[in-house]
Amino acid sequence: MKIGLFGFGCVGQGLWKVLHETKGVKLEIKRICIKNQDKARPIPAGFFTTNPYDILDDPEIDVVVELIDDANAAYQIVTESLRRGKATVSANKKMIAHHLPELYALQQKTGASFLYEGACCASIPIIRNLEEYYDNDLLTSVEGIFNGTTNFILSKIFEEHLSFDQALQTAQELGFAESDPSLDIEGFDPKFKLCILLLHAFGVFIEPEKVFHHGIHRLNDFDINYAKRQGGVIKLVARCYRNGNQIGAYCIPRFVPNEHRYQSVKNEYNAVTLESAFSERQLFVGKGAGDKPTGCAVLSDISALRYQYRYEYRKFQQNGAAFHAGNTELKVYVRHRRVGQVAEQDFSHISERYISGNYHYWIGQIELRKLQTAEWLHDPEVNLIEVA
Amino acid sequence: MKIGLFGFGCVGQGLWKVLHETKGVKLEIKRICIKNQDKARPIPAGFFTTNPYDILDDPEIDVVVELIDDANAAYQIVTESLRRGKATVSANKKMIAHHLPELYALQQKTGASFLYEGACCASIPIIRNLEEYYDNDLLTSVEGIFNGTTNFILSKIFEEHLSFDQALQTAQELGFAESDPSLDIEGFDPKFKLCILLLHAFGVFIEPEKVFHHGIHRLNDFDINYAKRQGGVIKLVARCYRNGNQIGAYCIPRFVPNEHRYQSVKNEYNAVTLESAFSERQLFVGKGAGDKPTGCAVLSDISALRYQYRYEYRKFQQNGAAFHAGNTELKVYVRHRRVGQVAEQDFSHISERYISGNYHYWIGQIELRKLQTAEWLHDPEVNLIEVA
Repeated sequence: MKIGLFGFGCVGQGLWKVLHETKGVKLEIKRICIKNQDKARPIPAGFFTTNPYDILDDPEIDVVVELIDDANAAYQIVTESLRRGKATVSANKKMIAHHLPELYALQQKTGASFLYEGACCASIPIIRNLEEYYDNDLLTSVEGIFNGTTNFILSKIFEEHLSFDQALQTAQELGFAESDPSLDIEGFDPKFKLCILLLHAFGVFIEPEKVFHHGIHRLNDFDINYAKRQGGVIKLVARCYRNGNQIGAYCIPRFVPNEHRYQSVKNEYNAVTLESAFSERQLFVGKGAGDKPTGCAVLSDISALRYQYRYEYRKFQQNGAAFHAGNTELKVYVRHRRVGQVAEQDFSHISERYISGNYHYWIGQIELRKLQTAEWLHDPEVNLIEVA
Repeated sequence: MKIGLFGFGCVGQGLWKVLHETKGVKLEIKRICIKNQDKARPIPAGFFTTNPYDILDDPEIDVVVELIDDANAAYQIVTESLRRGKATVSANKKMIAHHLPELYALQQKTGASFLYEGACCASIPIIRNLEEYYDNDLLTSVEGIFNGTTNFILSKIFEEHLSFDQALQTAQELGFAESDPSLDIEGFDPKFKLCILLLHAFGVFIEPEKVFHHGIHRLNDFDINYAKRQGGVIKLVARCYRNGNQIGAYCIPRFVPNEHRYQSVKNEYNAVTLESAFSERQLFVGKGAGDKPTGCAVLSDISALRYQYRYEYRKFQQNGAAFHAGNTELKVYVRHRRVGQVAEQDFSHISERYISGNYHYWIGQIELRKLQTAEWLHDPEVNLIEVA
């Protein structure tokens, strides 16, 4: 098996090192496509090219591994590679979540395998387990902490008592958050992963735009103190579930009480909980961000290609389930500042109301579809947290 | 696919129910072999037989599922079934651990698939993950809480402050421990699971007799209070690991500090930790005992047979690793009563000594091979706990 690699950052270099050091894996990286030819590289220049077609059109290369940041360029590489019948590996969740129907169709049409374990919770082999192990329809929900950056920030807030801004700055200094952290802290990134898992868990294709999400970017000291006073912490939890033939999904910060299984999932660790009618609760915990955990997932995908592994998408093929979760009712905390700022009629029930000079909050029940269309949620003074 | 079932206890009945209720799984149980024909059964009598050959010699039955307690009878059924080329599923860890080389050879010879996910940590899909996902040789250790009965007892001791005897009695009353609990509390059961995982993790066959184990049956209030004063609990941990080309394994109770990932693994839950050079630490948590978790694993095995799944035992086939762990040094707590009761010369270093009228303990370093041959460990007044 000969590999063509796109991108030679930390993951790519780690992969190179492992493939050259590991006895069990007999694989060769033949060519590496990079953007900047002038950078110093730790391996001979002969391996590198700036022309993608040196890889895509090389008949000797059977596996294309895409490890670049740019979602649009990644889309071009992956689709061109699959069209040429090459097995393809990627970890680009944003790109994959936005193009799943097309990427599925391309695999069916060309017979080429497309693997992307690294796109969901890095080192946790969740896609493979959903594909291979939980393939009977007893699964009732898949949820968890899918974003290492926000989990790192939340850990700093609750363990080291930093403010949100201090914690974000620390995460950026340590390389756990991008200089533009919006994809993470506003909850887009865990939602992309959720959309990918929706297909492998329940067999439904769903555009990210149709899934409600709310990030942790509006978290303030009042919310943080509220969580602490309740004896718990806040975690950003993405969740999908089956209710009869209806499948639902959302991603919202959640109050997590002490002693809860998510309490010990700290910093860049991710967690996935599977619930099924027969096995009850399974928990998977592992590092969800960073070069090594992602490299590990990519390596396992490459390794699986040695024996022609491919996702079968069995649940999609046998499925009658439809995405429709609007009528799911959630119990939420809504923090705001002024009377009239939140539409009371959107709630089916409000069980607690707190009013003070600085902040108000309600605890109440609200349907997911009301949250999806709520104008008041665009107000930066309003924050939303699920009450478990 | 037509199934022949041996045994119709809780797991068998649960399986029947699920196979008749689940849309995705198109499987039929054709015949059920039972020991006692006179018991009242919830399904028509025509399904039952007391003659194993009504299943084994039925050419229409392609899958044999063995769900009986008796390890000897299970061995007969499984080997006869494999010899006839039938795919076979079992969850009998004792039987499997003692016959792995023969069961492997039978699969190679007949081409029949033999699956046994339910034999290790019930609902946690650990064999499948080791087989399929962690098949490169970067894995450095597999360890965890592999026995639900002892974990239940230890949880009662540390959460509800029961003595060992009270906790054991509670476990027996609730059905979490057998009337003869020795296989569990003396550590045989988690060792059997460890021996099975040794093959799938590191590709070595090892007889259970060669793996050192020490159970929780000698735990007394002095040990329990010691653990509490250190700010932690005790868990029975089975562990196997790679050290260069040498593979080692043991099963010993361990002091686990507060906030450790095993602290939140309570009652009948099991946990498995995988460590690998590239992905660092992965944790899997799920119910490790009980009919439903075991039934879930058996169902997943049956389900995988629909697409001709079989264990490839890749690590055994590519491996140069040998089992030899004698020189691993462990840090242990050894509690005893009298001077001269424990052989001091067996220890490479003793860092703490405690002496009182009732009990003595040492904290020291000792090689695994010394523990394997230590006469003093047969003394019921001596207890051993690993210091992490």
